[in-house]
Amino acid sequence: MMKAAKHVLVAGGAGFIGSHLCAALLERGHTVTCLDNMQTARPENLARLKASPRFSFVRADVTAPLPDDVTTPARPFDRIYNLACAASPPQYQRDPEHTLLTSVDGTRSLLRLAERMGARFLLSSTSEVYGDPDSHPQAEDYRGNVNCIGPRACYDEGKRAAEALTFDFGRLSRAEVRVARIFNTYGPHMHPDDGRVVSNFLCQILRGQDITIYGSGEQTRSFCYVSDMVAGLLALMEAPGQVVGPVNLGNPNEITIAELVDIAFAVTGFDVPVRYEALPEDDPQRRRPNIDLARKLLSWEPQVPLQDGLRATADYFADLLSRSNAARSSPVKTERREDQVAFVAQ
Amino acid sequence: MMKAAKHVLVAGGAGFIGSHLCAALLERGHTVTCLDNMQTARPENLARLKASPRFSFVRADVTAPLPDDVTTPARPFDRIYNLACAASPPQYQRDPEHTLLTSVDGTRSLLRLAERMGARFLLSSTSEVYGDPDSHPQAEDYRGNVNCIGPRACYDEGKRAAEALTFDFGRLSRAEVRVARIFNTYGPHMHPDDGRVVSNFLCQILRGQDITIYGSGEQTRSFCYVSDMVAGLLALMEAPGQVVGPVNLGNPNEITIAELVDIAFAVTGFDVPVRYEALPEDDPQRRRPNIDLARKLLSWEPQVPLQDGLRATADYFADLLSRSNAARSSPVKTERREDQVAFVAQ
Repeated sequence: MMKAAKHVLVAGGAGFIGSHLCAALLERGHTVTCLDNMQTARPENLARLKASPRFSFVRADVTAPLPDDVTTPARPFDRIYNLACAASPPQYQRDPEHTLLTSVDGTRSLLRLAERMGARFLLSSTSEVYGDPDSHPQAEDYRGNVNCIGPRACYDEGKRAAEALTFDFGRLSRAEVRVARIFNTYGPHMHPDDGRVVSNFLCQILRGQDITIYGSGEQTRSFCYVSDMVAGLLALMEAPGQVVGPVNLGNPNEITIAELVDIAFAVTGFDVPVRYEALPEDDPQRRRPNIDLARKLLSWEPQVPLQDGLRATADYFADLLSRSNAARSSPVKTERREDQVAFVAQ
Repeated sequence: MMKAAKHVLVAGGAGFIGSHLCAALLERGHTVTCLDNMQTARPENLARLKASPRFSFVRADVTAPLPDDVTTPARPFDRIYNLACAASPPQYQRDPEHTLLTSVDGTRSLLRLAERMGARFLLSSTSEVYGDPDSHPQAEDYRGNVNCIGPRACYDEGKRAAEALTFDFGRLSRAEVRVARIFNTYGPHMHPDDGRVVSNFLCQILRGQDITIYGSGEQTRSFCYVSDMVAGLLALMEAPGQVVGPVNLGNPNEITIAELVDIAFAVTGFDVPVRYEALPEDDPQRRRPNIDLARKLLSWEPQVPLQDGLRATADYFADLLSRSNAARSSPVKTERREDQVAFVAQ
């Protein structure tokens, strides 16, 4: 059954997840307005979207008053996704004041827009609201263990405050709201230099550089392929009825960083030395979503196995790096070292 | 030794703690500019301050761009205290969006002002950043147990985000910053209807009304007399050297709400029936500061016993209520009921 085509605003739509979301919305016949300040987005992400006549782009920063293209569009928005915020520590720590205001003031502006237009609003929150969790896996009612004065607080507390604002708008019936707590997501169109572990490892391997592991490598993460994440965001936005709380979206398949390195070696077919550096402050030791609520509410769960997703991502980076002449000229295939795990455990 | 007289900005200076702070600064010879939107402040608080020629008042809301009187004063500020925010649940829940932005955007504006003027900045944060704590007593490194999507989140998360912003300004050397985490404070010039437990109990008793206890009465609080709090704020602002984290200010003398009722009966000399109502959502069960850091860093600790402070506060309310003709005309002194504790424990 074809649903009525909607006008959808995607703030942060030129970013990694945002551009995949825009593409998925266009594929489903919707009209999409993308709002982005291009702070961490890649122009390439926009280029493939601009091919659609139903796509338009507005360059603006959500911490400033919203531009007319967004406040008075020819057709009001039916849906507003707020994915606007730098999401990797090196990026969001560059200007912590701006990061925090992006979450708080940006969310407030977009909520007010949703209120005025009667649009449904979805906030992309983050697993970082759980901080360095002392409860595993993390369910939505876990209140978190966030250091509110540390170097990650501009992001974590900004998102927590954005959630507070969003649910206040919901409680007061000012807007129909949804909040997704997004766990680690990876896939093609990630920024090669955004400092996240999947892009770091794959690009280091493809460039023939040493891999850097922060800490022992025994810390865990759970990685969700981007097509699964986009399917979850669409399902959450379109779920009928009232959704009263935040919903975790992520892949519950938990692996150690050391295991991730092994799979990255396997899917690229290359091997490089592994270096260890000190763990940054407040880096979480474990991170794994409890997605029971998403399963029940949205009949959603991730479909793409890590091996497949990483292969597709590695192919994307290999192509990107070869085009930018940054790939090493003649990669040397090596056998996988059998002592990798022992080495990591040292 | 007389310190050099300073120009001090007190945002929220017409409020309960703010007006005591302004008075203490004036007493010490400083020039004080008070910025307040008069949302929860009482005009009476200002009247007694306006008697000083070194006091000036600017009515403005910190969520709006700051007025010229504040951005370009005849003499730049040396110190900026930010006490601007409604602090009791009935008040701050009236407009949760405004509450959250008062903490976040207000703190940001005042931090930028401090940065521009080279002023030292103090944020009045709150014990609410600990939420409903599962660690007792609360020390500054406890990360808290805050429900970031509940009806108290606009205050709690607003303050957490304000702390994050403040320490980012400190880390980047944009301003010299101090953060006080203020625990329950009481005393003369509290708003009789602000919904906090001390003012509630004393005014209910003085009006001859039933006392309302939310929950069993076994939940604990620690009450700091306002002159002790002001001494702590002044000491923290003027502490030499760098202060790297937040500092708890409060009275570590923990009592149950039921015990508080007993003392309130004793100091007023009146007795009224006690009614019980359901505990509001997210109301903390225990709250007691660990003030080791303040003792060490500021050589500060509370001096005023609860009995003395409550008596002074009751006298203030009795005077206030008699002037407003709201006190009962002929209060009946009764003997303290010996079964009070047993009654409460039912």
